Amino acid sequence: MAYFSKRNLNFLLHEVFHAEDLTQYPYFSAHDRGTFDMALDSATHIADTLMYPYVRDVDRNQPELKNGQVTVHPRIKAFLEAMGEAGLIGAGFSFERGGQQLPELINSCIGFILMAANNGMMYTGLTAGAANLIATFGSDDLNDRYVANMLSGRWQGTMALTEPQAGSSLSDITTTATPQPDGSYKLKGQKVFISAGDHDAADNIIHLMLARIDGAPKGTKGISLFVVPKFRDTENGPVDNDVTSTGVYHKLGQKGVPAMHLTMGERDDCIGYLVGQPHMGLPYMFQMMNEARLGVGMTAAGIATAAYHAALQYAKERPQSRRLNEKGILDAPQTPIINHPDVRRMLLFQKAVTEGSLSLLLEAAKQYDIAHAAEGEEKENAQLLLEILMPMAKTYPSEMGVQSVSQSVQTFGGYGFTEDFPVEQLYRDIRITPIYEGTTGIQAQDLLGRKMTMKGGKAAQLLMQAIGSTIADASAHDEFKPYAGMLKAELGRLQEVVQALMPHAGAGDYERYLSDATLFLEQMGIVVVAWQWLKQAVVAKQAMLTQNPQGDELAFYEGKIHTMKYFFHYEVPKTLGLAARLKDTEILTIVSEKELAL
Amino acid sequence: MAYFSKRNLNFLLHEVFHAEDLTQYPYFSAHDRGTFDMALDSATHIADTLMYPYVRDVDRNQPELKNGQVTVHPRIKAFLEAMGEAGLIGAGFSFERGGQQLPELINSCIGFILMAANNGMMYTGLTAGAANLIATFGSDDLNDRYVANMLSGRWQGTMALTEPQAGSSLSDITTTATPQPDGSYKLKGQKVFISAGDHDAADNIIHLMLARIDGAPKGTKGISLFVVPKFRDTENGPVDNDVTSTGVYHKLGQKGVPAMHLTMGERDDCIGYLVGQPHMGLPYMFQMMNEARLGVGMTAAGIATAAYHAALQYAKERPQSRRLNEKGILDAPQTPIINHPDVRRMLLFQKAVTEGSLSLLLEAAKQYDIAHAAEGEEKENAQLLLEILMPMAKTYPSEMGVQSVSQSVQTFGGYGFTEDFPVEQLYRDIRITPIYEGTTGIQAQDLLGRKMTMKGGKAAQLLMQAIGSTIADASAHDEFKPYAGMLKAELGRLQEVVQALMPHAGAGDYERYLSDATLFLEQMGIVVVAWQWLKQAVVAKQAMLTQNPQGDELAFYEGKIHTMKYFFHYEVPKTLGLAARLKDTEILTIVSEKELAL
Repeated sequence: MAYFSKRNLNFLLHEVFHAEDLTQYPYFSAHDRGTFDMALDSATHIADTLMYPYVRDVDRNQPELKNGQVTVHPRIKAFLEAMGEAGLIGAGFSFERGGQQLPELINSCIGFILMAANNGMMYTGLTAGAANLIATFGSDDLNDRYVANMLSGRWQGTMALTEPQAGSSLSDITTTATPQPDGSYKLKGQKVFISAGDHDAADNIIHLMLARIDGAPKGTKGISLFVVPKFRDTENGPVDNDVTSTGVYHKLGQKGVPAMHLTMGERDDCIGYLVGQPHMGLPYMFQMMNEARLGVGMTAAGIATAAYHAALQYAKERPQSRRLNEKGILDAPQTPIINHPDVRRMLLFQKAVTEGSLSLLLEAAKQYDIAHAAEGEEKENAQLLLEILMPMAKTYPSEMGVQSVSQSVQTFGGYGFTEDFPVEQLYRDIRITPIYEGTTGIQAQDLLGRKMTMKGGKAAQLLMQAIGSTIADASAHDEFKPYAGMLKAELGRLQEVVQALMPHAGAGDYERYLSDATLFLEQMGIVVVAWQWLKQAVVAKQAMLTQNPQGDELAFYEGKIHTMKYFFHYEVPKTLGLAARLKDTEILTIVSEKELAL
Repeated sequence: MAYFSKRNLNFLLHEVFHAEDLTQYPYFSAHDRGTFDMALDSATHIADTLMYPYVRDVDRNQPELKNGQVTVHPRIKAFLEAMGEAGLIGAGFSFERGGQQLPELINSCIGFILMAANNGMMYTGLTAGAANLIATFGSDDLNDRYVANMLSGRWQGTMALTEPQAGSSLSDITTTATPQPDGSYKLKGQKVFISAGDHDAADNIIHLMLARIDGAPKGTKGISLFVVPKFRDTENGPVDNDVTSTGVYHKLGQKGVPAMHLTMGERDDCIGYLVGQPHMGLPYMFQMMNEARLGVGMTAAGIATAAYHAALQYAKERPQSRRLNEKGILDAPQTPIINHPDVRRMLLFQKAVTEGSLSLLLEAAKQYDIAHAAEGEEKENAQLLLEILMPMAKTYPSEMGVQSVSQSVQTFGGYGFTEDFPVEQLYRDIRITPIYEGTTGIQAQDLLGRKMTMKGGKAAQLLMQAIGSTIADASAHDEFKPYAGMLKAELGRLQEVVQALMPHAGAGDYERYLSDATLFLEQMGIVVVAWQWLKQAVVAKQAMLTQNPQGDELAFYEGKIHTMKYFFHYEVPKTLGLAARLKDTEILTIVSEKELAL
């Protein structure tokens, strides 16, 4: 069974985003389409052979904590080894650090394929993220000691941020780090929800952990970043580093990955190594946030894509009832449910959400690459575009992915609720994505409270320009003129909302300014995905005009244009209600003296 | 932990819907508020002691099929016995049939309480529904043989409709019934997804089963209804009736109830007894459909209510971060998350959906009772109102309940995704409700294709009058005038949509007419729940003006008015986008000659 469309991935990578253009930058100049394809084929091979066949099995056999040791599914080890051998954990790392120096545009597609195949094997993205913190901010010594073993898949990396009392509020972290004479630190504290925080498929677990050095300033400015291994090297070889697995959370989904409760320093013997400068932990983390959030968006897009392809296949094969204009013809055979407008609407919704999400994520990934590889104004503009796109690129695939997989379940009817088909699992799995790496509420505050106003609004301006350029391209085709007009109207609608809200920010009333930020993020998410669909449609139209495609190829391009229209006619109108609320002056969610009985 | 609000239930039953008014009808004249309260207290006691304590345990220990026998959680038997002893399975049955002759208004509240406590114990509603088919359409002989044992909780009842090839399309049922010399029938065929279709907590399972008598007409007019017991009585005592448990589905949620795959007649010895007249199976079922759909709506409302109360408690207790206008005050303690506007919005959404759903369901239940107990025009009008309300009363609580529980999960953040809190289970459980008893798509066709036009549009007209009466009541209060105006505008918006669609029905193009019926149902659901909120707010206002409530009572009424405003300012604007789409003339979901690549 197909769990993603390679044709669509190639369309986005090469026809829409022109991945090869990136090879013009010196940093990516060793690559060409051939090396891109090789990396993607290699990921697909691993996904097909080592991941997809075990999607249920990994879900049904959760990690267990027994006698202080976490056991995970036996296939995880083979997967980690294969990923390391193929060089895919370090695909995005520089040659210097032992990587393939591939663009994030390609690297994030690798993540998409793996997560579409089996998101319960979400281990290597965590290792790459952790290793990248060391590679970017750590000393040569730390690099030498940790990075190679992580990129080979032998050692697992984690992001150890959350504590019981500090989830969204990272400034409230209380894990302590006490300086030792040899320059290392002794750590003491607790971390929760640490994905892959302990397991037996890796020989060591390397935690990238936030903690406060004794006497550090309060709040966000006193948090430092440490490497805290499960086993630390000593003159006498590796010793247990006093990171205890206190518990493993049992979860709704993504059951293949243990979410650990860890206790550091129970025996007063947990040693950590400072990464970079003291008190710079949060700024370092924030510099890695975009990759992490791209990763979550890709996970969501991958899961929703797998569910969509399962629903699509079922809808083509499952006969049920007759078409509405043929009721009463009792001898007529039942028709495949894809022929019912209501089912077709659900499928178009899933296609619109999943392919729109992927396109938005690749847009962000390409800006990431340009920001990395270009110079001067080009670099700066790409970074600003990336920054403003990220809240939507993380949230739209997650929030709308949850809706999309729900429609996949609904497409299956009663069968969708059973374990006989994969969608019930995917429905559970994807629900974490609006929570991971900054909840939707946090993303919304980031968008409206920071990104919209950053550099005097320049990021927002650049985004409007980019959308304007697609509007201009679309206006060249008569068929698309109405859609170009609709998207232009949406930009105006966004502008009106911003103007209505901005005075509250000006008056310093951030609680009021941000009270409906989540709805603003929802509205802006619809607008940027509409932009992505119009962009895809223009490319499809161009291909139809210049290449005279036939058969499946023609149907592919027509499907793109059709789904663009679906998005504009069914999804874009949702901004009407959102904008109406956002411009509404009645305050109902800000707590007042008078307490209400909720 | 509270899983529902008794204060809210009393408010709706007695202050909004004046339950005692029903006792003026002869059929309900034996009752008064005291007997209503007694039944509800009795249900609450069972819910508190025999259901709520086992909510996780029932979920974690799924039914198993071994050697042809289904084992369910050991507490199910005690629950069934208690329900039988308390007379709650037959609460809505006539005295003559061994029931309590309670109004559906009260009976459905019993269901609400039970399902809020532990929806994995969804057994008795099925028994009541099955017994009611016998009581209403069956011979005295069938009544004598089955009903008493079902109402006592000793025997389980089921609704055995669905077959592998006939889910939404009941007309495609192929189970056969061959007449026997003694007047009974031999059945042969398969049924799937039969809830509580076999288990060891009951001494017998009584299937109310649809099948075709040999030679019956094709389509819906050839389907008959049978009683098919697991064990049938013979002169030599009970014998196995050749209903084989072929499989038990493992499901996403509601794991406490086995969904059975049954095979009838493997040994050619499965006997069924005709209920009523031949070929009347579907009309009989349809006469019971309203109770069944009310039951699903109540299940959804109950689940979402339990999740809301869990989230509410957590939000009051969980400190995280500071208020947005107090950022930077590093010494400030963290604030409970209920004080963050985004969390408060999520909670108000949950309150608006769950209490609005319950109100809508009780509105329908009261019409059901009047249709049952009144005479002449009053009866007929109540029946029409019930008919047009049912698609929304089943669907709004289900579809919006799924969203509501998702927001309960989000309120908990990462903890919501773990098995440490109840919301992950409720998120799984509620997902079946938009599928049970007619999917959302089927409900939408029922609303737009049948109910809107029935009796020359009289049902719709009666609904508009009822809403109009609430608008008039609200207009008496200055504070509510804007909301009365908004609701009136919503009626106009609905009217516009209907006028835009009706020509397609007139032209006989039902596929086009009904292509976006689901969106029409969504729009109309918002309008009728807005109506329920305005109705509740008027009652609350009246109470504040006349009773001078203080403390918790005042806060309760103020909370009602506040939530009404929330609904109008946040939920009602969603109709703008829905209406825009519904009036849009671009067709995108009707299959054409030119096949698209989806």
